Amino acid sequence: MIKVAVMGASGYTGVELLRLLLGHPQVEVTCVTARQNAGEPVAALFPSLLGRTDLVCEAVEPEAVAARAELIFTALPHQTAQEVIPPLLQAGRRVIDLSADYRLRQPALYESWYGRHGSPQLLAEAAYGLPELFRERISGARLVANPGCYPTSVALALAPLVKHGLIDLSSLVIDSKSGTSGAGRGAKVGSLFCEVNEGFKAYSVASHRHTPEIEQTLGDLAGEEVTVTFTPHLLPVNRGILSTCYASLRQPGDTGQLLALYRDFYRDEPFVRLHPAGSLPNIAYVRGSNFCDLGVTVDPRTGRVIAIAAIDNLIKGAAGQAVQNFNLLCGFPETTGLAAMPVYP
Amino acid sequence: MIKVAVMGASGYTGVELLRLLLGHPQVEVTCVTARQNAGEPVAALFPSLLGRTDLVCEAVEPEAVAARAELIFTALPHQTAQEVIPPLLQAGRRVIDLSADYRLRQPALYESWYGRHGSPQLLAEAAYGLPELFRERISGARLVANPGCYPTSVALALAPLVKHGLIDLSSLVIDSKSGTSGAGRGAKVGSLFCEVNEGFKAYSVASHRHTPEIEQTLGDLAGEEVTVTFTPHLLPVNRGILSTCYASLRQPGDTGQLLALYRDFYRDEPFVRLHPAGSLPNIAYVRGSNFCDLGVTVDPRTGRVIAIAAIDNLIKGAAGQAVQNFNLLCGFPETTGLAAMPVYP
Amino acid sequence: MIKVAVMGASGYTGVELLRLLLGHPQVEVTCVTARQNAGEPVAALFPSLLGRTDLVCEAVEPEAVAARAELIFTALPHQTAQEVIPPLLQAGRRVIDLSADYRLRQPALYESWYGRHGSPQLLAEAAYGLPELFRERISGARLVANPGCYPTSVALALAPLVKHGLIDLSSLVIDSKSGTSGAGRGAKVGSLFCEVNEGFKAYSVASHRHTPEIEQTLGDLAGEEVTVTFTPHLLPVNRGILSTCYASLRQPGDTGQLLALYRDFYRDEPFVRLHPAGSLPNIAYVRGSNFCDLGVTVDPRTGRVIAIAAIDNLIKGAAGQAVQNFNLLCGFPETTGLAAMPVYP
Amino acid sequence: MIKVAVMGASGYTGVELLRLLLGHPQVEVTCVTARQNAGEPVAALFPSLLGRTDLVCEAVEPEAVAARAELIFTALPHQTAQEVIPPLLQAGRRVIDLSADYRLRQPALYESWYGRHGSPQLLAEAAYGLPELFRERISGARLVANPGCYPTSVALALAPLVKHGLIDLSSLVIDSKSGTSGAGRGAKVGSLFCEVNEGFKAYSVASHRHTPEIEQTLGDLAGEEVTVTFTPHLLPVNRGILSTCYASLRQPGDTGQLLALYRDFYRDEPFVRLHPAGSLPNIAYVRGSNFCDLGVTVDPRTGRVIAIAAIDNLIKGAAGQAVQNFNLLCGFPETTGLAAMPVYP
Repeated sequence: MIKVAVMGASGYTGVELLRLLLGHPQVEVTCVTARQNAGEPVAALFPSLLGRTDLVCEAVEPEAVAARAELIFTALPHQTAQEVIPPLLQAGRRVIDLSADYRLRQPALYESWYGRHGSPQLLAEAAYGLPELFRERISGARLVANPGCYPTSVALALAPLVKHGLIDLSSLVIDSKSGTSGAGRGAKVGSLFCEVNEGFKAYSVASHRHTPEIEQTLGDLAGEEVTVTFTPHLLPVNRGILSTCYASLRQPGDTGQLLALYRDFYRDEPFVRLHPAGSLPNIAYVRGSNFCDLGVTVDPRTGRVIAIAAIDNLIKGAAGQAVQNFNLLCGFPETTGLAAMPVYP
Repeated sequence: MIKVAVMGASGYTGVELLRLLLGHPQVEVTCVTARQNAGEPVAALFPSLLGRTDLVCEAVEPEAVAARAELIFTALPHQTAQEVIPPLLQAGRRVIDLSADYRLRQPALYESWYGRHGSPQLLAEAAYGLPELFRERISGARLVANPGCYPTSVALALAPLVKHGLIDLSSLVIDSKSGTSGAGRGAKVGSLFCEVNEGFKAYSVASHRHTPEIEQTLGDLAGEEVTVTFTPHLLPVNRGILSTCYASLRQPGDTGQLLALYRDFYRDEPFVRLHPAGSLPNIAYVRGSNFCDLGVTVDPRTGRVIAIAAIDNLIKGAAGQAVQNFNLLCGFPETTGLAAMPVYP
Repeated sequence: MIKVAVMGASGYTGVELLRLLLGHPQVEVTCVTARQNAGEPVAALFPSLLGRTDLVCEAVEPEAVAARAELIFTALPHQTAQEVIPPLLQAGRRVIDLSADYRLRQPALYESWYGRHGSPQLLAEAAYGLPELFRERISGARLVANPGCYPTSVALALAPLVKHGLIDLSSLVIDSKSGTSGAGRGAKVGSLFCEVNEGFKAYSVASHRHTPEIEQTLGDLAGEEVTVTFTPHLLPVNRGILSTCYASLRQPGDTGQLLALYRDFYRDEPFVRLHPAGSLPNIAYVRGSNFCDLGVTVDPRTGRVIAIAAIDNLIKGAAGQAVQNFNLLCGFPETTGLAAMPVYP
Repeated sequence: MIKVAVMGASGYTGVELLRLLLGHPQVEVTCVTARQNAGEPVAALFPSLLGRTDLVCEAVEPEAVAARAELIFTALPHQTAQEVIPPLLQAGRRVIDLSADYRLRQPALYESWYGRHGSPQLLAEAAYGLPELFRERISGARLVANPGCYPTSVALALAPLVKHGLIDLSSLVIDSKSGTSGAGRGAKVGSLFCEVNEGFKAYSVASHRHTPEIEQTLGDLAGEEVTVTFTPHLLPVNRGILSTCYASLRQPGDTGQLLALYRDFYRDEPFVRLHPAGSLPNIAYVRGSNFCDLGVTVDPRTGRVIAIAAIDNLIKGAAGQAVQNFNLLCGFPETTGLAAMPVYP
């Protein structure tokens, strides 16, 4: 049993992480921090966990956390995570960070999209935790930067095309739609039921912070710089991201050829499922699971490929992927604690 | 590993049963029938199961099913279940029936609410599969009648009060609200998204078929006949039932006393969770789990008790309870394959 | 054209009131207050009104408002409304108050449910603004207390039964379900999309503040004191209240007789619609309109009547009823500005 | 008062048309056909209209309809509309057709996307009923082809850019999302609440029948052939379409310049609202109204423009636009009967 702590457990990512870790056969959760709810039992904060845990939220410092856990999951807001992670590492602990703080390798890029960084020297060291694409770097890391939800869906949707040089990289248009849990559990008017329900909108058009993260990953795969147009939208559902990605094919191709390519690319991946021709991903088919479902279609009239990915943003887009990275770090089979099938309907 | 079959897998109860059984460590699903989808892979019918099963829907007869499975789950419409179950039993198989066909013990009662019954002689034999209340009869049964979703929630909400004779049985008013999966996967205008979403209504007022089932169970607990007013409503959610039950207390009492009584009554039940004073059940807290959450409040101004139960209608209200009964029949710990925590949000 | 002001326009009731008043042929809205949004154009706060109004939110005092409007709608929180209304009345203005501050006639009752009252002497004077039941008192009033959303639905559902003495008043159980706009536009975790969507719960069991208001109205109709059990629930929809009301009939009766009684009782009411036998109200059928839809069923097995009312909580339960009262005060036909048909689906 | 008939009133477009026409001050609805519901009162089929109409569905033939109405709205499925429209025109009646049957001018194009056409000679005569772009041709027409919902949103989003030659026409990518009422009121498993709710998917990728209609309109505006990639998605909401349109600018430009261009282009249009910089359309802000809300943003990093349109698919995307065309045909102000403000929340 590995002793782990969760710092920042009062949000949707935090509670989902707790749910997965409490059900993980190799994990003992020894410490949960949530400053504003310190003293409150986790099961009072989240009655979904009633009867399944006696953990109580604490307000302790990183040093105290490090003394009680071998590995720490940080589910804190960006800018806050970077304050607690250096002391955790210094105490010899490994960290899986679910914030955006260590995802971008270049300090200048981080600063232009997020603001000042307190430990830029760690950026180059952190392993970007997308196992399907960067498994090897992750295994030995002491700091894993768990990817953003949108970037996870986009990278998995496009990796085979980019890696094989099949698309015009300047033609990439990414239209993503996310469930509302992605906006967090903060009390904001814009996240109220009546504002979101029966509504749909784009937001942060041409300015969303996941843009450089998407470009960094695609650039790594392409071996050259990539610039994309990325538009997120807010869906009136709790969970799920569907990303519809458009690119021009460099050579004519058909749907069957690309499906074969994808099937080969993800042959051994337990969490990537490719929809056969005539079937398409739906966030309803991945809800509650760590799956990323993919669909690929060529539009012969325009020579474009439309690659679609669906994930549960709180699982493959956050907590589940963090557990997958945890399994990698600890040498457990990657699916340990992540075998739950999608909850449909 | 127990070889099991699922007859009638094309509905929401069927697919939920498959999901649970495919994840059950002691089960091998050897046969799935769905007459109208015969020949179709289960994962094509339900892409949520993509990559997790190669089972194909079949149209075989009960005899052929009995030859391939030790125990059969029947998730067929009432009136249809009673056609396939007698031959299954005759072939020496045990059956857990999720239809209404064997829930009412008295043939005349069945006929007045559902119509003619083809094997009324089995009604007295069938064990009513509500483990928390009738565990002993279930263990040795060859035919288990899995309870209806509404009756499960109502029986668990009221059992401590009825069993202890604390309420005026003539005062029972039960106001229940169910998610739309309870209406099944049939293509009906009334179940269309646009008809249900942003809507809410009562239906089958004073005439719902679960009424006699509720009365039978409460009557068994009370040791006398019980008649109730039961009103179901349709909720614009996929899953969940919340039943709000009203009754007049025979003697003055307060919330604390009743909570203590409930805590004692359900002390050893792994799937019943009692909300402490000041907290109330919400279907969101049980979604995806086999839990039944209870809340009890006394209204001192009127002398009534309000007992509230929340379940996931497809799990504790159907497929999960069936697996719980299966565990009882097979001597497995009752929670085997049912440990999933609620998926929130 | 009557010059009117709306005080407290930043909530859901406020914006609905503005929508109705901007479309009212006899109204000119001259002043809108919303302290925290002072200086902001109404159409920036509520883009649904883009292009339809140039009004700007103001932070002015009651005296300034009184100088610019003949009649003022106050859509402020309770306890706040009572601070601005006395000066408005003193300036000779008529007021329609959408808060709870002047609904209860007895100061002690108000104080036990809401807290201290700053102008208890006005309680007896205020007219309770439920036109279908108290039309005459409203017409001449200078202060109208616009009813609560739940009490409106319950009073209209039960009035014919209570007025005709047909039910045992001690048997009243009222199970109500409200859309989330009833919880207001405040940024609270409990009103977040992910907390409400796919959820359903009871709240304020045996303690909701609309209880004494319901009892006051039913008591007025009965001519004696009435005590009820009232349980509100939170529905995952934007708009709508459905109240399911249970009572024991004093004499045996059938559905047809009661439908005839209701038809007669509401014969000339433009906003009350009675569903014929076999049809039941649904909040989806009243959305966007000032209608109150009613359904009545007798349960012959228990001798209870189940009376159901559906309204749009923001219209007949708040802003629409306020406009109906406005029409009464001004001598306009009661349906002026309220003719919109329900928006379905 | 103009006597009008509605043929095919049992679907969502039909009932919305009835709602608008019953509230139109210059209209008398004299005949409603719905073959499968013949004999049924409209208000029984759609209880939202209870108390507002005594019309009864009929199964009469076009000749009988023509005898009772001056102008006929046909809300029939494509392929069916083309059977009833020629006799209506022959009887000297004007027709506004809400099906797809007369939208495409070229018979070969219609046949390749929809199948055989029974009256191809009328295709050239029919006026495409998008008033903001083709007002003049509509006024004098005897047959108006009311545009598709997706094409309406896309054409209004892109018209200023295309008309002014500002974008590379080969770069057009259109990602649209529609509420479920767009799928009609037919009883299909794919439209069930539990299939749509909490789900989101693309469908008809690279093959949706609205593609040629979009291309025809943009081609008319551009004066050259246009080919687009168009991907529709299904939103879990009742009403609303949001189309996110991407194109590469031919010359560098900024958001401010394009907003000015749009403002000028739609200066006198009562139903087009342009969101100012920093604000974006949301289907929630147009629900229940005939508005088309637009937002325009330039992505300076990629040189693309993102133009977004939001409409209520049943109003501006169907019934409302039909009434707008009706007003044009009859010489009424275009906003007659269409003044309703959006119903928010």
